[in-house]
Formats: sequence, C-alpha cells, structure tokens
Amino acid sequence: MKRILTYFSLIALVLLVACQQEKPATNNSGFPKLILQKSAVPMMIDGLAKYPLLKTSFEDAKVIADKGIENGIIVPFPKDPGGGYTHEKHKQNYIEMYNAGLIYQLTNDEKYAAFVRDMLNEYAKLYPTLSLHPLQKNQAPGKLFWQGLNESMWLVYTIQAYDCIFEYLSAEERANIEDNLFKKVVEFFTVEDKYSFDRVHNHGTWACAGVGMTGIVLGDSLMIKEALYSTKLDGSGGFLAQIDELFSPDGYYAEGPYYQRFAMLPFIVFAQAIENNMPEMKIFEYKNGVLLKAVTSLLQLTNSDGKFYPINDVIKEKSWLTPELVFGTNIVYAQTEDASLLDVVEEKGQVMLSAQGLAVAKAIAEGKTKSFVRKSIIIRDGSNGKDGGLALLRLGEPENQTSLLFKFSSQGMGHGHFDRLGINLFDKGNEILPDYGAARFLNVEAKEGGRYLSENKTWANQTIAHNTLVIDEQSDFNGILKASEESSPKLVFADLESPQIQVVSATDEKCYKGASLNRTLALLQLDGSTYVIDLFNVKNTNTGQYDLPIYFNGQIINTNFDYTRLNQYKVLGKDNGYQHLIVDAKAKDLPSTTSLTWMNGNGFYTASTLSAFNTEFFIIRLGANDPNYNLRKQMGMLYRFPKSSNKKLLTVYEMHGFYNSVTEAVSQSEGSVKTLKITEGNAEQVCIQITLKNNKTINLLYDLKFANSNHNEILVNGELLNWEGNYKLFIKEI
Amino acid sequence: MKRILTYFSLIALVLLVACQQEKPATNNSGFPKLILQKSAVPMMIDGLAKYPLLKTSFEDAKVIADKGIENGIIVPFPKDPGGGYTHEKHKQNYIEMYNAGLIYQLTNDEKYAAFVRDMLNEYAKLYPTLSLHPLQKNQAPGKLFWQGLNESMWLVYTIQAYDCIFEYLSAEERANIEDNLFKKVVEFFTVEDKYSFDRVHNHGTWACAGVGMTGIVLGDSLMIKEALYSTKLDGSGGFLAQIDELFSPDGYYAEGPYYQRFAMLPFIVFAQAIENNMPEMKIFEYKNGVLLKAVTSLLQLTNSDGKFYPINDVIKEKSWLTPELVFGTNIVYAQTEDASLLDVVEEKGQVMLSAQGLAVAKAIAEGKTKSFVRKSIIIRDGSNGKDGGLALLRLGEPENQTSLLFKFSSQGMGHGHFDRLGINLFDKGNEILPDYGAARFLNVEAKEGGRYLSENKTWANQTIAHNTLVIDEQSDFNGILKASEESSPKLVFADLESPQIQVVSATDEKCYKGASLNRTLALLQLDGSTYVIDLFNVKNTNTGQYDLPIYFNGQIINTNFDYTRLNQYKVLGKDNGYQHLIVDAKAKDLPSTTSLTWMNGNGFYTASTLSAFNTEFFIIRLGANDPNYNLRKQMGMLYRFPKSSNKKLLTVYEMHGFYNSVTEAVSQSEGSVKTLKITEGNAEQVCIQITLKNNKTINLLYDLKFANSNHNEILVNGELLNWEGNYKLFIKEI
Repeated sequence: MKRILTYFSLIALVLLVACQQEKPATNNSGFPKLILQKSAVPMMIDGLAKYPLLKTSFEDAKVIADKGIENGIIVPFPKDPGGGYTHEKHKQNYIEMYNAGLIYQLTNDEKYAAFVRDMLNEYAKLYPTLSLHPLQKNQAPGKLFWQGLNESMWLVYTIQAYDCIFEYLSAEERANIEDNLFKKVVEFFTVEDKYSFDRVHNHGTWACAGVGMTGIVLGDSLMIKEALYSTKLDGSGGFLAQIDELFSPDGYYAEGPYYQRFAMLPFIVFAQAIENNMPEMKIFEYKNGVLLKAVTSLLQLTNSDGKFYPINDVIKEKSWLTPELVFGTNIVYAQTEDASLLDVVEEKGQVMLSAQGLAVAKAIAEGKTKSFVRKSIIIRDGSNGKDGGLALLRLGEPENQTSLLFKFSSQGMGHGHFDRLGINLFDKGNEILPDYGAARFLNVEAKEGGRYLSENKTWANQTIAHNTLVIDEQSDFNGILKASEESSPKLVFADLESPQIQVVSATDEKCYKGASLNRTLALLQLDGSTYVIDLFNVKNTNTGQYDLPIYFNGQIINTNFDYTRLNQYKVLGKDNGYQHLIVDAKAKDLPSTTSLTWMNGNGFYTASTLSAFNTEFFIIRLGANDPNYNLRKQMGMLYRFPKSSNKKLLTVYEMHGFYNSVTEAVSQSEGSVKTLKITEGNAEQVCIQITLKNNKTINLLYDLKFANSNHNEILVNGELLNWEGNYKLFIKEI
Repeated sequence: MKRILTYFSLIALVLLVACQQEKPATNNSGFPKLILQKSAVPMMIDGLAKYPLLKTSFEDAKVIADKGIENGIIVPFPKDPGGGYTHEKHKQNYIEMYNAGLIYQLTNDEKYAAFVRDMLNEYAKLYPTLSLHPLQKNQAPGKLFWQGLNESMWLVYTIQAYDCIFEYLSAEERANIEDNLFKKVVEFFTVEDKYSFDRVHNHGTWACAGVGMTGIVLGDSLMIKEALYSTKLDGSGGFLAQIDELFSPDGYYAEGPYYQRFAMLPFIVFAQAIENNMPEMKIFEYKNGVLLKAVTSLLQLTNSDGKFYPINDVIKEKSWLTPELVFGTNIVYAQTEDASLLDVVEEKGQVMLSAQGLAVAKAIAEGKTKSFVRKSIIIRDGSNGKDGGLALLRLGEPENQTSLLFKFSSQGMGHGHFDRLGINLFDKGNEILPDYGAARFLNVEAKEGGRYLSENKTWANQTIAHNTLVIDEQSDFNGILKASEESSPKLVFADLESPQIQVVSATDEKCYKGASLNRTLALLQLDGSTYVIDLFNVKNTNTGQYDLPIYFNGQIINTNFDYTRLNQYKVLGKDNGYQHLIVDAKAKDLPSTTSLTWMNGNGFYTASTLSAFNTEFFIIRLGANDPNYNLRKQMGMLYRFPKSSNKKLLTVYEMHGFYNSVTEAVSQSEGSVKTLKITEGNAEQVCIQITLKNNKTINLLYDLKFANSNHNEILVNGELLNWEGNYKLFIKEI
C-alpha cells in the first residue's frame, strides 16, 4: 500500500500546528494524564464502593501489583528468546509496573509508587548499556526483547506506569528516568529502528503509540509529531497514516480479526491518550469515526460463541474475551454509549481502571446492558473500501444462530490465506464448514518454539485448505503473495434486507489466470430447515479441472450414492497443500444430485451437489506428509469436475433436525433435498431448482450479470418466467 | 444370576401377608393415591404461588397437556417400528395423558380429565382387539408397541393418569376402562408375556412397576403380589427379587450407569407408590436402603460435566440432566433431605408434580441447596457386593476435577463390555483416556434404524477397544458372554483416605486362561502435576504377547523417541476388534522410558511407559473395515510387549500445564517424567521409581501380595527400604 499524506491526516496536521505550543494543549492539569486522568481519580475511588465490576477489576489489578512487590525488583540482562526467562521477566515487569501505577493512584499507598520508581531506576541503569538483543531473530530486533514489537509493548504499558507516579517523583528522579530510559527507548524507535517505526503495519502502530504517549507525558512535541506523522513528519507513516491505510471505512483491518484484536490495543489506547490531551484533534471522529467502527466490526466478526471467525492466520480458540478488547469496548462505550458493548464487558467481567471503565461499570450496575446482536452485514475492505470485503449472513436465535461468512477481501498481507471467495459456515455454536486457521501451537515450546509451523505455508495458506474452488490443483496466484496483493475480488451484489432470503455475490478476475470466478450465495429458511444455496459461475478462457473441497466436522451419517473406502494409502496430490491430503474413500458414476449427511453436536447437515456421471468424489482427510503430527485431524469431501472451460457449480448446504442429548429424541435426521437443477437462459439468467422430498420446489432466479435489469426472463420447463432485478425466489408447492 | 427367595424378600413377604386385606392397607384415602396423592393437592396448589421451580414444572406440564388437547384423540392401530408413526403416537399419548392427569388435579379444570377419559375409552376399544404387534422384532413384542418394554412404559405412565381422574369417572366408566384396558394389559404381562415379567432384568422391572401400580389403583392384591413376587408368587422374580439381585449393596446396577439411569425410573416410582400405599413395607429401607443408595451412586458415576461415565454400552452425551433423574432425585430427597441432591435438581430446572417435588422446590426456594461433591469411592458390584466393583479416584477443584475410573466389576449382562480392569481418565471436564462407549447412533434412522450397530459387537465390546491389557490379541473370555458372567475380578486393596495418595488394586484370575492379572493404580499430586501410576502385574502359566492400548483425545505434541508415520495402509490385526484399527505410525528400538505428550482442551498430558528395546510402539486409529463410517474417529497408542510369561507393565499418566485460551499463555507444556524404573524384592515387594526432570524422585513401594504385612523390605540401589502395610510413598529430593 502507498504511504501518502492523506486528506484526513493533512487536516489533522494543520490543526495540530495551529494549536501547537511548547507543551501540547491539554484539558486536564497534572498527572496522570494519559488514560487514567488525575481529575477522574476521586470519582473512581467513589465508584469502587458502588460498582461491582470496577471493584473486582481493581482487586484483580491489586493482586498483580502486590505480587510484583512481593517478588521484588529484578531487571535481568536480556538474553532469552520468547518464552525464555529474561523475555518473560521483562513482560511481567511492565504488567506489574502498569498495575502498580494504577493501584497507587487509587489507594494513594506509596509502596506501589516506590515499586514502580525502583523498577524504572533499574531500567534507567540497564537500558543505556544495551545494544541489540543477542538473539536478533529477525529484521526488527529490540534491546530488551528479541523482537522490537515486544519493546513497543513494554513502552506502551511502562509509560502509563510512569505517568501514574510522575507527581510522586522528585525532579531529579524524573530527569534520570526520562533521560536515561524513556528518551533512549524513543531514540531506539525513531532513530535506530526507524524502518519499523515508519512502517504502515501493526508493529509500527505499537511503536507510534509508545512514542506518542511518551511524548505526551514528557511534554515533547517532536515525539508526538513523529508518532503521528512518521519520523519524516510528512504523514507518509505514523499513527494517522496507519489509521488511513490499515482500516477500511467499515473498520476492517486487512489482516483479519485475529490480528485486528491484537492491533486494536495501541490504536484505541493511543487514541484515548490523544483525546485526553489533544481533544482538538477529534481523533475519534477521524476518518468518519473509523476507530470506533473498528471495534464494533471486530465484535461482529465473531461466531455466536464469541470466537473470532477463523480466517487467515488465526489461533482458533481466541474469543472476544481477549484482554485487548477490555480497552476497545470500554473506550468505545465512553464515546458512543452503545449499550450492547456492555454485554461483551459483562461476559468478560473486567473494566479499565479509568474514567472509561468507570462509565462502563456504572452503566452495567444501572442495568443499562443491551444484548449484543450479530447482524447480517457487509464489511468493506481496503483503505477506500474498494478492496472487496466480507459478507456475514445470519439467521436465527442469537445462541443458535446460523452464520455464513463469505470472504472476498484483499489478501491481508503476510498473514493472509489464498482463499479467494471462500466460505465458512457456523450453526448452533459450532463450525460446520470449517476453516483450518493457522498451523501453529502458539507458545507450545515443543512445536517449533510455538512459532508458525512449516505446515502453515505448505497447508494452511493454500487454496485447497479452504472451502473454495481450486483450478488445476494450483493455489490462487500460484501462492505468490506479491501477486495476490495487487488485486482484490469485487462485491457484485448484496441484498441482506429481505426477511425471506439473503443474497450476496462477488467476483474475482485475477486469482486464476484467464479465469473469472463468481460466487453467489443465498441463505434462506423453509419448514424448519436452513439452506445455503451456493453457485460458482466460472468463465475460463482455458479449460481447467475444478476441485471443490467441502470440509466438515462431525460424523458421516449417510449418502445417497455408493462409495468405497480405500484400503490403500493414497495421497491426493503432490503440491500446493494436496500433498497433505489422504484419499479415504472415493466414488464414481455419481447420481446427478449427490448428497452427504453428517452430524455435528446437536444438528444434522447435508451437502447436496449437482454432479455428473464423470464427476469424481473423494472423502479426504488431513495427515499426509506430516511426520510430526503437526496437523490437526480434518475431514472433508472433494468434488472433482473434469476439464472444462465455463462451468457452473451448484451446492446446497442444509441445516436440519435436532438431536436432543437430554431426552435422546431425534428429529429430521434426513436432508430434504431430492434433486438440484440449473436451467440457463439466453442472457446469463439462471434458474436454480431445488426439489424437496416433499415435492415442494425452491426456485431461485438470478441475473448473473447482476445488472439490476428491470426485465429478466428465462424459459424453464416450457414456462417463461419474468422478474425484475438481480434475483427472485419463489417456492412452488405441488 | 440365580433367582432366589432372599432373606430380605422373605421378610417383606411375611410382612405383606401379615397385614394383607382384600384391599391393600393405605394411609391415604381417595384418589389419586399412587405418586401425587389427594392429600398433597391443596399444598401443591399453595406451593405453585411460592416456589418458582414448582411453578415452571407445572407450566411445562400444562404446555404438554394443552398441546395434547389441541391435537385431539388419535389412537392408531399399531403398525410401525420404533421411530415410526404409530409407535411415536402411542408414546406421545401416554405422556400427554400423564401430564393432563396431573394438570387436572392441580387446576380442577375438567377438560383435562375429559381428555384422559376419552383417550382411555379409545384404548379400551382398541386393546381387546389386538394380538401381538405385527413387527415382532424380538422375543418380547408388545401389542401397542413392537417391544413389550414400551408397553410397560405406557402402563407406568397411563395408570398414573387414570389414578388422577379416577374420582372424575362414573362407576360404569371405570368398569369399562378397567375391564377392557388395564386388566387386559396386565393379563398380557402376567400371562402372555410371563417370561419377561418374571425375568430379573430391567424389562421385568418396568413390567412389574406397571402391573403393581395398576394393582394399587384397581385395589387388586393379586396384581400387587405378582408384581412384588413374580407370577409364581414365590419371590423367584418380581420387584423385590429385582432389587435384591440387580443392585449391589452400594446401589450399583450391573449394566452400568447408562442403563441404571433408565432402570431407576420404575424402581423409584413403584417404590414411592408402595411407600404411599403400603408404608408398612418400608420399601425405602429394604436391603439397607439400597434404592436410595442407587440414586446417589448413579450421581457419583458422572464426570464433572454431569455426563455418565461411558462404561459398557452407553451413548456418551447422556448426562444427569436425563428426565429419569427428576424422579430419582426428588423421591430420594423427600426420604433423606440430602441437600446436595438439590444442586442436581437446580441444574435440571424441573421437579415432580407431587409432594416430593413440592418438598424439593420449597427447599431450593429456601436456599438449602448444597454443592454436590464427587468423592473418591469404591462402589461394589454384585447382589452381595462380592462381584468386584468400580473405584473412583478423584482430586482437585470440582469443576476441573481429575477423576480416574477403574472398572473391576462383573460383566454387566448383555450390555457389558469385555474390559476387565479397564480405566478411564477425565480432567478439566474432558475425557483424557476415553472409553469408546457404544457403537450406536440412537434414534438416527439412517444408522441401522438407530439400533446397536454391528460394530458394537465387532469393536466396542472387544477388549482392545478399552484401556486395558490384551493377551495374544484375544478378548477377555474370548468374547463369550456366558463365560464372562461366571466370575468377576476382586478388589484386593484400596486406600482412598490419604490426602497424599489414593491407591486401589484389583485382580482378575479368569479372563485369560492360565493367567492372573493384577492392576494397581495410584493417584497423587506433586508440584502442580497430577500423576496416575499404573502397574499391571501379570502372572501367566503360558507365554503371551501383551498389548497395552492407551486411547487419547487431542493432538500429539511430542515424544521422547523417534517414530515413523506409515505411508502404507496397514490394519493392526484380523479379529477381536483389531480388524478395525489402522497402524498410523510405528517405532522400534525404544528408550527404556518412552513418553508421548498430547494436548486436550486447556491441558497437557503425558503417558510414560517402561519399555524395552524389543517393545513395539504403534500409533493407531480407528476406521478399518468400516465401510459406512459407522465408527467415530479415535486415536490411541499401543505398546506391544513380546512374548513372555510373568510381566510387570508400568505406565505413568501425567496431567500438567495449562493453555489459557484467553491470554494465550502456556505453562508446563512439557511432561516432568525423566525415567521410570521398577525394582523387585524377594517376596513380591516392588519399588517404583519415577525420576523427574528436576531430579526429584517419586518412590512408591508396594507389597504386591497385599497381605497388609507389618514388615516389608526391598533392596533398592543398595539401600534396604522397610515399610509397614501394603504401600508406602516417599518423595526424594536430590
């Protein structure tokens, strides 16, 4: 992405210059001033007695601070990698200082201030003696830590601790700590590691937040300007450029929700510090309030169990209970008073120790909480909103909601997967058509030190690892990151407003050379079942073999065709992820509508695919070329359509029935689909007919040009059907 | 088991005869009299306004009754099997009549009584015309249903409905319903299907309960006597013989917890009817109060998530929220006032509509609930308590409790598995060393009509499907039920009282010809890890190959030895369950202590086994010879010890570490065991030494004669160790 001085950041720069003084303008006097402000402290102390959530959060912080004091001051010389002693100790130190600073403010007990002071003095002795960390793992090492990223995190927390004890310190003590510690750390970022600092990337955000907040506390306007506009001061990097470029207008962060929740912390915390000290910047209104939208969009990017949707590199257990979102929800609530955020905070059971946390705890105590509702929405990607996006189609009661995630976003940088037009399906809290997520056992030492495993590249990133089309056993863009970053799919059409049916369509023109891939998805309910109607419309100037993998979790219940389990060991392919798949069963001579039903949790699921006699069917499972069991178990089915040029692929996923594990009663364990049929019109109109076993027919008419024409027609079984607009649904009862 | 007139049932017979009249003695007058009694109705109505749980239970019942009235009276001619229309309709009818009867009593609204009356009149027309059900599936068909068992269930509920509307009916109406329906149904059981009725088996219990309760309502003492003492009236069968023979003195039911919860209903409900109408029998004191113990033992046979331990044929999802336990917990609470039962009721959220349910709802409303505590206990099996049993060893906080189940019970009739001396391990709510349970998808039509699958016999029943020793690839007793029923393992020693370590030992002398198998298990905690020390002591007059399978759920993290994943398809064996196992990886040339670590949920688990250079190691997975994916995925490891006669096998299971999915912090992902060693003494003493990576040593001394000798000694590393009693533990810090 280009790093430019955008319209928005120009305005902000002008504003800042206009009101610039030797010290930045503040609307509060005295310290602390960053997040917890001096003026809020008396109200906070008052609130501790009134608001249970504030009280428990205070107590949790006090436990951490007390434990720090009990453990004493240990500031080891940096030596170890992530997970090792010195790494973990420096992490622990900043968390303990941060909490001790807050507890000092809220108790006025000087032992907490003294603890932070003594620790900072030790750091002020150590830091100037340091060169780069002995394990310079990558291009961006720190001094205390093997990664500069950790050093930024250290600064974001530690400067808040210093802010809390600022007034406790003598002028000499401050001078020592500022000159020998904070200014040196800032110098590291803005001079030695300028590349990372100026980079528009979440590592840059952490560094800018740390330096900018240090500038506010130290009253150093150059630091603030560098944090906001890059070391060149021209807006080519820095916090505002990061907001401009890393978030779409809908608040989507290109790397996906897992990294978004990590990056949200410095964005939202630094923004609050700016709001508190430079309110004239109106940072929360910046780019139409994108930072606020980023938090609510991130919350929308969760399944009904609170887990983040597992797109791109993601550790699948991660949910909105993540500590970073304490800051996000609290700060956004203080701005918007959106009562549905309180729902998330209540589940987490923790608030910030600041005016924002106070407001949240008060509102919760006053019973203002509203349910957080997961809606059907389109979330645009790209800094201008034009790099595709995500569609979330949702139906049903909150706890058992069905949600279909359709990904037509940009690549998402290095943590993106080659999964153009991929889908994920969730139902009753479970992942029904799963995404593998990342091949990584985070922080599990025995699995390559807890880092990304090599299988992340050879399997998890590859197209075949996702619920989307694969042409000629190749990944999108041949798996080349640079190529994939040059274009994005486009949203072609969406209508999520109809109570009867939700439709979304997107196209990618570039991911396979010479081919245009369009995928149109519809979600509807009928007679107790929920259906996803999934149509791929491929136009290919070449001929290609089309593989459609459908991964599923659960137990196979039955099929409407014969298959054979293999009693030989057969790997599906040689490369691009295929080398990790074992063929467990196969079938040929398929019926024209091929159905497989499986059971997952309390639900039954059937995938029905429009097949042909020469379509091949495989049941596949993960595990080949995986000598160390680095890959999790995963099953799927794969339809292989033999070489053709243009091709329409139709699959219907049905969610039906219920297994009541308390009473052991079972309803509707059989899928309802009898046959699928596509009829094609003269001008790219199609009619999808789903005939059910009860002889009802679901008819779905599309104008695949999506031209919003007011006259479409198609001849179906001798009957001329007319409609206006891009689609029409009608149910025929025979 | 022999069917004899036992001491207890003799006393009861004498008692009954002593106070026998034309009508049985009752301490209440009027109807209803069975469970909900006329005298309780005013208190119940009063309680509805006061006790929320009574109110919601009433409302739930009313919904069912109202729906029944709305649907109208349909009593179809029997035709279909389980799951089919007529089967489900007759089930629905008795549930609706039962609830309508109760609601009539509690509302005095005659429409409910009329509904029951009209339905019973229809049955009175239909029943006399019926011969055996057209689908005579098995040796014991019914008339309304394909199984007599369902017919008994119909009677147990329907007679209660009749009891509730008895006073509403005219004498003519009663005569018609009694003569043409109830007497005919009773005749079916006591004459036509006498074999099932007199059989000491849960099917017999249902029939006796139905007939006995009918006798009480109709004032027919012959029916009551037949229900209590069999149709021969000699106590060779009937309810008392069933209590005598089917329950151990600790209230264990030989088929295991899954069938126990099913069988509990007729036992406990008929007992309450007896208590209400023949209190002089003191039925709840019968056999030292075994019916009361049966309920509390059944509750103990659950994991921390409430699921029944999955031994024998069991559907693994089943938990103590099962509807049958509403009766069990309520009736036992009314007898014992054991406040921990209220905990279970609260979780279920439902009470009986009777004086018992009233007492429970009142106690809960008054805040009397105490936590249900899962304890370390021995539960004896066998009518006299001498057929082995189960040991439950437990440690830790209730929600994350570690529990080890050791099964040394009798075979458990037709639903028993050939799993002598098997173990199951649970931790943090998850099943760590799993039992497969039954191969059955209950009520899922597509899986062989929801019945037991053929794989239940070929896999789930077999010894290799369990965490226990297999000699020469044969199942216990060569898989012959009759042979297995002739003997049981014996408890040799148990000490569950020490806070430091819990020890249990049991022996089976018969399951493999010529061999004696002893297994001794110890559960202890040290430095944040929990260990299970598992010693098999095999004495074999022949030589045998010893296979020790260890099934595990989760992801392999690492091993301390090299293995090779197979790139060929290899089935482990030919028969006895081996034909279903695929060899996924193998290793040879093992180190003397062989460790494999896996991750499950938030925990890490390591199994370390004392191996030898010629021990073979396999990673196995389920799925061979399973053409229809009837078997679930299951992984395991298998140690194969080459042919020998006497053999000691030592494995240590360690539960360690924690993966915090909220913060992504990981602790102790590596197991602590460095080496295992066994030293043998002169007189069957052994010293187990577990040397940890931190150089501490866990020393566990056993006298394997378990003679409770006050002098044991053994020479270990040149040091003579002495101890009293069967075992001694000491931790050595070096």
